[in-house]
Amino acid sequence: MKRISIFNVILFFTLIFSTPCWSQTDPLQSWNEGPSKNAITAFVKAVTDKSSADYVQPSERIAVFDNDGTLWAEKPIYFFLYFTMDRVKEMAADHPEWKSQQPFQAVLEGDMETLAASGEKEVVELIMTTHAGMTTDEFTDMVNKWMQTAEHPTLNKPFTELVYKPMLELLDFLRANDFKTFIVSGGGIEFMRPWTEKIYGIPPEQVVGSSIVTRFEMRDGKPVLVREPKLNFNDDKEGKPVGINQHIGRRPIFAFGNSDGDLQMLQWSTLAGEGKRFAGIVHHTDGEREFAYDRDSHVGRLDKGLIEAKNNGWTVVDMKKEWKVIYP
Amino acid sequence: MKRISIFNVILFFTLIFSTPCWSQTDPLQSWNEGPSKNAITAFVKAVTDKSSADYVQPSERIAVFDNDGTLWAEKPIYFFLYFTMDRVKEMAADHPEWKSQQPFQAVLEGDMETLAASGEKEVVELIMTTHAGMTTDEFTDMVNKWMQTAEHPTLNKPFTELVYKPMLELLDFLRANDFKTFIVSGGGIEFMRPWTEKIYGIPPEQVVGSSIVTRFEMRDGKPVLVREPKLNFNDDKEGKPVGINQHIGRRPIFAFGNSDGDLQMLQWSTLAGEGKRFAGIVHHTDGEREFAYDRDSHVGRLDKGLIEAKNNGWTVVDMKKEWKVIYP
Repeated sequence: MKRISIFNVILFFTLIFSTPCWSQTDPLQSWNEGPSKNAITAFVKAVTDKSSADYVQPSERIAVFDNDGTLWAEKPIYFFLYFTMDRVKEMAADHPEWKSQQPFQAVLEGDMETLAASGEKEVVELIMTTHAGMTTDEFTDMVNKWMQTAEHPTLNKPFTELVYKPMLELLDFLRANDFKTFIVSGGGIEFMRPWTEKIYGIPPEQVVGSSIVTRFEMRDGKPVLVREPKLNFNDDKEGKPVGINQHIGRRPIFAFGNSDGDLQMLQWSTLAGEGKRFAGIVHHTDGEREFAYDRDSHVGRLDKGLIEAKNNGWTVVDMKKEWKVIYP
Repeated sequence: MKRISIFNVILFFTLIFSTPCWSQTDPLQSWNEGPSKNAITAFVKAVTDKSSADYVQPSERIAVFDNDGTLWAEKPIYFFLYFTMDRVKEMAADHPEWKSQQPFQAVLEGDMETLAASGEKEVVELIMTTHAGMTTDEFTDMVNKWMQTAEHPTLNKPFTELVYKPMLELLDFLRANDFKTFIVSGGGIEFMRPWTEKIYGIPPEQVVGSSIVTRFEMRDGKPVLVREPKLNFNDDKEGKPVGINQHIGRRPIFAFGNSDGDLQMLQWSTLAGEGKRFAGIVHHTDGEREFAYDRDSHVGRLDKGLIEAKNNGWTVVDMKKEWKVIYP
């Protein structure tokens, strides 16, 4: 019998404990080889390689992502509007006047044409009516319950399944390289937080979004936060850099969006300060597997973003060509 | 020669790799044995022991700390006011009218009596004048430069050395037990962020504080955030639970303050929801080594907090009796 030396055993265990895995699988396997995948991997390599001039300390590896249209779909209308519409229907029994009062009437009659033509004022009115008047805990329960049963009207799937698999892989890839991943969305912060950790691996404290005013109150000796029908912060367009600075307090080195609402976030992340930065735009080019839209779309309009991307060398992802699959 | 079995070698290496350190030093060595140290260690043991009924998942181990009077000193006046006063002196050459205009005149003449008698209106006016009108990057530079040279007027030490060693140990102890530590302060968020990571180990994205309005702007093709002379958020009293919810989105299980300004934060962290919670109050009882004050102090008044602590079983730290040392 050949004697196994202690040295060999030590070597064996040292190898086991120092190498997390033997085989390397592609962390971005849903991405076709192409310019976007290359740009992403080259950037991550450059900022994580200690011998690179572009090396960035882990604590400064901040990555921000828009949500609607970037991490999950947003057609035919933003998903939080379906939640809002269902809330209107729930509340309608206590509001007989809504039968002849817009924009509530349109919601109750399923008149999508009138709804789609609504301006910001009507949307804000719908949100203030349906997202306020309860405690933060009660609102979280409502969102959780709705998410468990609600389905997309044409794709007939739960909304949380309409997330983009290639983007989930990107989030994992960045985190595996010590990036801290944040959502920076125009959507309601309290609408996202109940499910972002489970679906995206992004915890509540890393979600930045629009918000309404909350007020502290003691009720029967128990503290609550009451949601009031008043806008606190609009985390869209020029609001996104403001929200990033307010919540994160560092400038991101990696940012991903899909519409002109993300333009200022991409500018703030890449055009100021020093060091290597990455900006990416999800371009919705796939009318068969998803939806195709850009310049002429009311929801998720992408116009200036395409021009700025060209001027600044940002990465524009052609969904149709570059993504092997859309949904998980 | 006795043959060492492979089994023994495996056992040896398994032990080495599964036990991070052999000798256990006291993580709270600046705390005397007593009720506060016992309460802290018992709480941490209970929520981190997987076999305990009080076990809390690491992701939910949120700990919040007030800053002024809890992590560093706050006497004779809040430290950010010294920064504000130095800014007034710097800016005075461009404002000859300040020589006869309160509260600026009092600052320029070093008239602390008049300053101490100033109301909230005067303090806000001083802050809006000196903390606004520049970009966020410019303001961060100002804070950094000031922190490098400024000294406490009577203790003759840099302000960043007037932090409490027992509290630094507590922050480390909690983080070693997978807590995420946050500051929740009435002080300016942008005044704290430049140095909290180095001094407390708390990164910018885990600092919650008061803020002024910022506005996104492109200047010569470079994006900047301009600080405007308008209050955005007052992170004090009822504002603290609001700020916690806005920034963290989870309810803390561990909270530490020192004044009635922290009362609602302690209530929000401990009196709502289920599961074991910890609330602590630093009681300034040491007039020799630090400052002794509570009910009758204008700065850091602690009155209702002492009553609530008794009613709710919160931990009140007697600095004089329970802390071996004050500063590092």
